[in-house]
Amino acid sequence: MTTTQSIPVRVYIEDTDAGGIVYYVNYLKFMERARTEFMRGFDYRHYALGDAGFQFVVQSCQVRYHRPGRVDDLLTVSAELVKLGKASLVFSQRVERDTELLCEAEVRVGCIANESHKPAAMPADLYQRVKKETGL
Amino acid sequence: MTTTQSIPVRVYIEDTDAGGIVYYVNYLKFMERARTEFMRGFDYRHYALGDAGFQFVVQSCQVRYHRPGRVDDLLTVSAELVKLGKASLVFSQRVERDTELLCEAEVRVGCIANESHKPAAMPADLYQRVKKETGL
Amino acid sequence: MTTTQSIPVRVYIEDTDAGGIVYYVNYLKFMERARTEFMRGFDYRHYALGDAGFQFVVQSCQVRYHRPGRVDDLLTVSAELVKLGKASLVFSQRVERDTELLCEAEVRVGCIANESHKPAAMPADLYQRVKKETGL
Amino acid sequence: MTTTQSIPVRVYIEDTDAGGIVYYVNYLKFMERARTEFMRGFDYRHYALGDAGFQFVVQSCQVRYHRPGRVDDLLTVSAELVKLGKASLVFSQRVERDTELLCEAEVRVGCIANESHKPAAMPADLYQRVKKETGL
Repeated sequence: MTTTQSIPVRVYIEDTDAGGIVYYVNYLKFMERARTEFMRGFDYRHYALGDAGFQFVVQSCQVRYHRPGRVDDLLTVSAELVKLGKASLVFSQRVERDTELLCEAEVRVGCIANESHKPAAMPADLYQRVKKETGL
Repeated sequence: MTTTQSIPVRVYIEDTDAGGIVYYVNYLKFMERARTEFMRGFDYRHYALGDAGFQFVVQSCQVRYHRPGRVDDLLTVSAELVKLGKASLVFSQRVERDTELLCEAEVRVGCIANESHKPAAMPADLYQRVKKETGL
Repeated sequence: MTTTQSIPVRVYIEDTDAGGIVYYVNYLKFMERARTEFMRGFDYRHYALGDAGFQFVVQSCQVRYHRPGRVDDLLTVSAELVKLGKASLVFSQRVERDTELLCEAEVRVGCIANESHKPAAMPADLYQRVKKETGL
Repeated sequence: MTTTQSIPVRVYIEDTDAGGIVYYVNYLKFMERARTEFMRGFDYRHYALGDAGFQFVVQSCQVRYHRPGRVDDLLTVSAELVKLGKASLVFSQRVERDTELLCEAEVRVGCIANESHKPAAMPADLYQRVKKETGL
């Protein structure tokens, strides 16, 4: 059983700002890449696109910034699923450079119906598979 | 008759990179904002969204960079329509800071059918209106 | 006395994602634009650049997403200063489309020394001016 | 001797727009990642940062778009050095999905002095190493 996916992220110029560091907003992009790879592990590919009449959207996030990242850094970005509901997923996420914690966040992702934009249960087979494989 | 639309663009931290200047890729975003406002002048609002079965896409661009922009700069970004075809628009665009030219580009925008992604004539009423009002 | 700055933000294609809505990360960019304009009101221009040996950085943010924004929307983005410390500012921020609340956040901005990246008091004249004009 | 560097690029939601495809501006980011890895092969790491009193900047680019990329695509992005000068590098770049060409560009990168922003020769050892290893 696995509840965590980690990916390497190289910092490029596109990710930085005039302060000479990673533009703080971009850590949220890195974190979404890790969540995407987490979901890919469950064969869920187009997870934000609503092909099946629903889509996952970020409903809230709490982010704390500790140290700045810099261009050329090779970061490790992780997504740990900490809570599984029928219509939501809560992830605890970290961005690290070796043993240094640069940034951490809790991100709540909800499943909504495409047309109404109201909360909706995710497909039962996806829910069951995530439940089984993560033990949550 | 008017063939040119100009808009002010304030440079924010989000637009810069670790070189301390505007990230060169972002001038293309500024230029698209000016083209969007140009099209808005013809009551064409969702111009990249294909609500009517077609969409406009950038087919090619040639960009030359002359001087760097910096955070807090107030830029003037212009889009001049220089060529009008039934399935394409060619814009000449400039990004200026007062009298200094920072960046210029020629951008070719094509109209394509949503499903086939093949070139398609834009709606006749849009074409006629642009033709009449620009004199092209 | 004023504690709030509001700015209009037009949503362009660059701000959207394949879900057809504003990419949720980009609301944080809109919010920073409002904070930048807030600080500009105190004649503080290059507020993230550390010209004076220090810089402001975002230390944490809590964001809640309520409704999706779409291309061409004209949004109102506000930054209200709710807490003023010698080395920090806390803003309450909202993104609205007419009377609809799309997104809200609490953003904590800290002042740090450029070299050490440790918390540092902001310049006294800036602190006093903000304190006086906001009544905080 | 090698004149080409290729990297894989996964398309994430952050790279797309409301047209459902890769936002065309973002191909330029992908291409810069490939150029960065090309330069990393010559032990040149902070290639846009001017640590040594100079920096590389993009001076011009010509981009042609052929087919749209989509979320989850795994692209191959290449940078081929086609011309080497003492103060400039010209790259021919391609973005491909399997055998399909999505986008191609010629990108001219110039070396400039940090302070004057005038053209300047790149460090001699870097120039000689690139010249020797590429045979240009």
